[in-house]
Amino acid sequence: MNTCDVIYEGKAKKMYRTEDESIVLVEYLDQVTALNGARKDEMVGKAELNNTISSFIFTWLKKNGIENHFVSKEGKTEQLIKKLEMIPLEIVLRNVAAGSFSKRFAVAQGTVLTRPIIEFYYKADELDDPFINDAHVDYFSIATEGELKSIRQLTLMLNEKLIELFDQIDLTLVDFKIEVGRTSDGKILLADEISPDTCRLWDKTSKQSLDKDVYRKKTGDLLTVYREVTNRLDALKEEN
Amino acid sequence: MNTCDVIYEGKAKKMYRTEDESIVLVEYLDQVTALNGARKDEMVGKAELNNTISSFIFTWLKKNGIENHFVSKEGKTEQLIKKLEMIPLEIVLRNVAAGSFSKRFAVAQGTVLTRPIIEFYYKADELDDPFINDAHVDYFSIATEGELKSIRQLTLMLNEKLIELFDQIDLTLVDFKIEVGRTSDGKILLADEISPDTCRLWDKTSKQSLDKDVYRKKTGDLLTVYREVTNRLDALKEEN
Repeated sequence: MNTCDVIYEGKAKKMYRTEDESIVLVEYLDQVTALNGARKDEMVGKAELNNTISSFIFTWLKKNGIENHFVSKEGKTEQLIKKLEMIPLEIVLRNVAAGSFSKRFAVAQGTVLTRPIIEFYYKADELDDPFINDAHVDYFSIATEGELKSIRQLTLMLNEKLIELFDQIDLTLVDFKIEVGRTSDGKILLADEISPDTCRLWDKTSKQSLDKDVYRKKTGDLLTVYREVTNRLDALKEEN
Repeated sequence: MNTCDVIYEGKAKKMYRTEDESIVLVEYLDQVTALNGARKDEMVGKAELNNTISSFIFTWLKKNGIENHFVSKEGKTEQLIKKLEMIPLEIVLRNVAAGSFSKRFAVAQGTVLTRPIIEFYYKADELDDPFINDAHVDYFSIATEGELKSIRQLTLMLNEKLIELFDQIDLTLVDFKIEVGRTSDGKILLADEISPDTCRLWDKTSKQSLDKDVYRKKTGDLLTVYREVTNRLDALKEEN
């Protein structure tokens, strides 16, 4: 595996060209950020945990009918993924009120929503990723109406599968953020990562957060809770 | 006309019960507010101007195929309107980038949008009228999917008619905010007011604002520009 130039450097990941033009190498970094990067810390060991969890979930999803960009796990902190034309959207699905939703609408944290709520945020650092509606998606040529329909369907299907997965390790999937891209033949494909960085996960018994909220809210040790999620997924692997 | 109890008191209007249960008397107040009521001033003469303009526009809309809640103008600052079950939405349509849209998306003020953009805000003072999407409208039982469709159709039709009207008095309709309600038989009806309080109106030649922005931005005298709009509409009346 010859890695060449860096083609992208984000808050928690670096991406490299590979010899195969259709494949990209992702390197997870030992970085944690909050408030759109305003708070940032190095955290040795985080890259490995995120890579392990995300690789496990993408593999599980593939086996369970949800195609995605994941190709293979390479070493402790690296993954090969399919190269996509990324759509600049953060797609959020909420099952339970928490975070900005609770604040914006004064709905108590923990309130189970009667049905999942999907929200789109425009991924644009200089604008601070604003919340948008379908008319904005259209105006800024972010995605077509047909693509938005596919994205909503995919997000709802993914939600059902992720609930099923996390249920097996005694976690409630409160909400999650995904990103998607277009394949060369124009299909919408699940991309980015799925981990406690991008999902709110509450222990079903203790109701405690096993996700990035422990860093955002300074209520616990991030590495400890990410390791807990990894261990529960590992146990699941052994069961199967 | 026997007015009885006040049934509603808002930032710029009071509403009274009448002898006819299906009819409400609206009294416009000499009040102007900005920033969701955080800035507030008394402005003697404003009530009469708003009532005159809004009555003129609602009457013109009726003649031009857009039904609405207006019944008749009563005295200088009062109107009779049909009683509706109001839907707690501020429905915004934008033809040209301005205000919060320009700020949120860094689109230069004055940029003509390729097609009208509709936005919904949840009318809830305690939440500061947050911007919402269709999933929130559904979750908070603000309106049904069918009603939202009717609201979008009405807003687009209204936009065409208002552009036609303001074009005749050399004003560009930059954007506007409306509110709608349900009739007793469940139809969506245009309500609230249409005036320089609720529309951004730019003179076609000078590009100057003839609307509440002169108060928001402290760039001119509100009564002077509202009087200018009234005079232009009066001239139109005489022409017809």
